[in-house]
Amino acid sequence: MSGRFITLEGGEGVGKSTQIRALAAALAGHGFEVVATREPGGSAGAEAVRTLLMEGNDDRWDARSEALLFAAARADHVARTIRPALDRGAWVLCDRFIDSSRAYQGGGGGITDADILALHAFGSLGLMPDRTFLLTVGADEAARRLAVRDAAGADRMGSKPADYQMRLNARFLEMAAAEPARWRVVIADAPADAVTAAILAELTEWLP
Amino acid sequence: MSGRFITLEGGEGVGKSTQIRALAAALAGHGFEVVATREPGGSAGAEAVRTLLMEGNDDRWDARSEALLFAAARADHVARTIRPALDRGAWVLCDRFIDSSRAYQGGGGGITDADILALHAFGSLGLMPDRTFLLTVGADEAARRLAVRDAAGADRMGSKPADYQMRLNARFLEMAAAEPARWRVVIADAPADAVTAAILAELTEWLP
Repeated sequence: MSGRFITLEGGEGVGKSTQIRALAAALAGHGFEVVATREPGGSAGAEAVRTLLMEGNDDRWDARSEALLFAAARADHVARTIRPALDRGAWVLCDRFIDSSRAYQGGGGGITDADILALHAFGSLGLMPDRTFLLTVGADEAARRLAVRDAAGADRMGSKPADYQMRLNARFLEMAAAEPARWRVVIADAPADAVTAAILAELTEWLP
Repeated sequence: MSGRFITLEGGEGVGKSTQIRALAAALAGHGFEVVATREPGGSAGAEAVRTLLMEGNDDRWDARSEALLFAAARADHVARTIRPALDRGAWVLCDRFIDSSRAYQGGGGGITDADILALHAFGSLGLMPDRTFLLTVGADEAARRLAVRDAAGADRMGSKPADYQMRLNARFLEMAAAEPARWRVVIADAPADAVTAAILAELTEWLP
């Protein structure tokens, strides 16, 4: 019985990190080794690149440099953390992966989805998740969660306005619709334990 | 009369930075604005990436992450320093550019020259120099210069053994032979002012 590579995607404040923690506990309860990680970051080199990406003004990096830095961080994360874990049979739960680059960096500033996937093919040999969960909330709930987060102070990536978050969610929904075998869309307005149960129900084929 | 983009390439210790300084002075004497720069680095973002690349052990980055980081640094350098300078008519003199990535990162670890050029096409829209000078020295002179440099302490990029430097020089010579309109090979064993004169003689078509 071998592990699986599971990613959680979605806009800011939809509860991805909460769900990662709950899923890690549930899968550990089934006797699996679980590696919970996140992007950008997840390995020593990738965390150093994350610092470059998260600090500074909105215009610190132009779009092409930023896409290359995300690809570099992901390549390090895959080579040093994700692939070794999968090779030894662990489950890897990752908060954001290639689809966040496709949603955030692709489709703007002259950078296409094909460009982002080409960088991923080069840097990470095109590794794709076994299953990707899109956590999505209604517009009212999204605005409420963003307001709470903004009051606490947001970094360079999390400080975009609400209409940007709405377009982003639409991009994720398009990607999910285009590749239904890999994606599952989960409505994350429900209580956290109900969301966790909904996610686990979509993993039963791989559970004992 | 507009400026030109000139790059100097070659192994460690062949005198590139000395020649950049001398050329900058000579071109300024012709009344040009001159921007002397270097890679990796040459802009605020690229210098931050340079720090990531130069610090740490030999195995800090795998080959793919390293190639992406160099491409990211170059994209920032081109967008923030080189293109703006060329657009206002300055001469840009750059100590290392895309050909160093082709020589150092390409052709090893499963990374091809085509991969490196594809990253450059994405990140820097494929900007190529108007002229590239390969500074090359004989094997005895190279060994002598490296010994002097090693005694002073070398960074992560400059601490490779002598046979590596010889293979590198062979890669540069191959690239120069494949694209003779852009490249000029300069024997750098001669005194520095003779080398400067040899380089300037290959720029007369663009000088007043």
